[in-house]
Amino acid sequence: MKIAIDTERISRELETLSGFSDVASPAVTRVVFSEQDARARAWLRGLCAEAGLEVRADAVGNTFARWRGADENASAVATGSHIDAIPHSGRYDGTVGVLGGLEAIRALKAAGFTPRRPIELILFTSEEPTRFGIGCLGSRLMSGVLEASVDATLKDAQGGSLSDWRGLAGFTGELGSVRLAPGYYDAFVELHIEQGPLLERRGVPIGIVTAIAAPASLRMTIDGQGGHAGAVLMPDRHDAFLGAAEIALALETAARSTGSIDSVATTGVCDIHPRAINSIPSRVMMEADIRDIEGARRDGMIAALERACGAVAARRGVSVALEFINRDAPATCDARIIDTVAGVCEAEGIAHDRMVSRAYHDSLFMARICPATMIFIPCRNGYSHRPDEYASPEAIALGAKVLAGTLALLAL
Amino acid sequence: MKIAIDTERISRELETLSGFSDVASPAVTRVVFSEQDARARAWLRGLCAEAGLEVRADAVGNTFARWRGADENASAVATGSHIDAIPHSGRYDGTVGVLGGLEAIRALKAAGFTPRRPIELILFTSEEPTRFGIGCLGSRLMSGVLEASVDATLKDAQGGSLSDWRGLAGFTGELGSVRLAPGYYDAFVELHIEQGPLLERRGVPIGIVTAIAAPASLRMTIDGQGGHAGAVLMPDRHDAFLGAAEIALALETAARSTGSIDSVATTGVCDIHPRAINSIPSRVMMEADIRDIEGARRDGMIAALERACGAVAARRGVSVALEFINRDAPATCDARIIDTVAGVCEAEGIAHDRMVSRAYHDSLFMARICPATMIFIPCRNGYSHRPDEYASPEAIALGAKVLAGTLALLAL
Repeated sequence: MKIAIDTERISRELETLSGFSDVASPAVTRVVFSEQDARARAWLRGLCAEAGLEVRADAVGNTFARWRGADENASAVATGSHIDAIPHSGRYDGTVGVLGGLEAIRALKAAGFTPRRPIELILFTSEEPTRFGIGCLGSRLMSGVLEASVDATLKDAQGGSLSDWRGLAGFTGELGSVRLAPGYYDAFVELHIEQGPLLERRGVPIGIVTAIAAPASLRMTIDGQGGHAGAVLMPDRHDAFLGAAEIALALETAARSTGSIDSVATTGVCDIHPRAINSIPSRVMMEADIRDIEGARRDGMIAALERACGAVAARRGVSVALEFINRDAPATCDARIIDTVAGVCEAEGIAHDRMVSRAYHDSLFMARICPATMIFIPCRNGYSHRPDEYASPEAIALGAKVLAGTLALLAL
Repeated sequence: MKIAIDTERISRELETLSGFSDVASPAVTRVVFSEQDARARAWLRGLCAEAGLEVRADAVGNTFARWRGADENASAVATGSHIDAIPHSGRYDGTVGVLGGLEAIRALKAAGFTPRRPIELILFTSEEPTRFGIGCLGSRLMSGVLEASVDATLKDAQGGSLSDWRGLAGFTGELGSVRLAPGYYDAFVELHIEQGPLLERRGVPIGIVTAIAAPASLRMTIDGQGGHAGAVLMPDRHDAFLGAAEIALALETAARSTGSIDSVATTGVCDIHPRAINSIPSRVMMEADIRDIEGARRDGMIAALERACGAVAARRGVSVALEFINRDAPATCDARIIDTVAGVCEAEGIAHDRMVSRAYHDSLFMARICPATMIFIPCRNGYSHRPDEYASPEAIALGAKVLAGTLALLAL
């Protein structure tokens, strides 16, 4: 079977998809349940229908495009990713897995392949935490890691609940119905840009993911004492921002001193109240992301952060409250699926490396309900979540080709 | 002459004024040229007219309520302060000087006093830097420290110019006409809460200001490299926020190590871009306020900050741009006016201390065009620029009484 990927078509479709954005190109902002998200979803449903796939959506907006298999009773093989994009990010994160997955299916159809198992393309809802503060919303619900009770409790910064938002977007029904039974899928494979520099540095075009790092997200609230920036003397101050600055630096030190290159920690949000040049900060809300491929090392960084919070609170006379937004377990990918991807690469003479994913994907949760892995392609300088994120058309096409071969073998 | 201050009336008027606010009591937010600012100004104009004062406004909205003197050719004696309030601040900053000044004039009228010189109550526009990033806008223009060319160049965060904003608020005409000739006023005295703890700690009800600290406001822009919080390894990072955190802490150290209690420095604004929990901060905009009563010590703190910016830039591979929003000279108050206030206190048996003002006031600029001083009253715990800012009705009334006596002597 000769699999022909239309490189030009994927590039054109990625270009079109990047236009559904709240900011000017090359930056992309497409928050789940925004108007641009709705427009992008509608356009994608059209592409899937045009490819002869049956499209349905669940109660949270996870969207499934199904290619019926010869054996309708067999559980399906799935691929897919997300299209939501954090503020001022790029064009390739997630979208390569959605449009690449669609292209893989179209290529298999064009090659005259008939799958025994159904093949499904999944568009996951809200992989990014932008609106609700929690990532992988759709796959968390599908895997049962997140309970349906979040419908009312999960809210965005303006107080809109998940229930409100999905209703406005046209996704109704009981949120509990999103959960899939174990065995519903026979396998899941996600195509994605690496979001790191390793494949590019090594000159290897395909990465096969053996494990996905365990992320923890935390919110810290530092309460000090405000006051006039001119009048309160330095020894009398309890400045919430200076406490926050020390905590962020302590977290960096913790991540740099685990002894492993796989430990990373980031403080990406720091909001000051009252945020005035002539007022001492009385309160800071800060959010941090801590990851490792080993849970124990990650927990070591969290413990160091907690010690820093305690020390800063005592020394500065401020209070520090720390809450976990999520603290997920790492995922190990399935050996059979990994070997299938590797077999496809070897048959085609494509160099490939087994590697870990330090970034966070819907595969982390899909791996809980079916055998799963990911196919990584290089991206320039490892950049992601920024406007200059870039993967070459050739790299994307090669990823789609390996995905197509893998789906074909898994659907036999 | 018996001067009778109506304590209950000032308290009631402060209560009413605090209601012109964008946030719920006890917090106050009243930004210059906002709807609440307009409502508060209209209400105050009414109070002044009711007191028999002639009200006019200049091209930037500085408002003058004049009590004609017996000698209309004599230059006037002035008092006044501001009514704009930074976000989530309190009820007394500035307003005590406006309503206390009005009450002083009403009390002099009620006592049957006839001034030789005219007495004017001034409501200064935008003492707070909230909208335009620069404090004392009205008095800077009156004193000529700020050029009329800022009309087009001074903009708020949304890009609205001073020209646009004052026009919308109904203040038109050439901005250059705001500038007053030296000698226009014979004296200026501002009543204000101390915004520091010294009077309360010492149990002294009146402070007479001998000098006003020299403030400098700076904006720093730190440009690093963004990226995915999971995928970019720690040694490869150029995190703008961690650089900003080090700079803010270095500024604190500089302020604490000058050897003088009068050195203060505050980083009150720190905005992260793109501000996402799973993105490395690529850019930070940070604003700092540095003050001292000695210009040389303040410049030493600025130099230390500049060294810290350079060191952080080199060590982290980020760029740090530093610009001055303003860098004003300190003011020395006038011995004759100070002695006049002291004489009033002594005649009435009121304890008083001579002291410096660490906070920043319109008096800093009025002192450039006429002899000036300030009368301070204690505020609870020295708190200011926060919702629990508080001065007792009795303390305010005593301040208004000393102000009335001072105005009477100066207007003779």
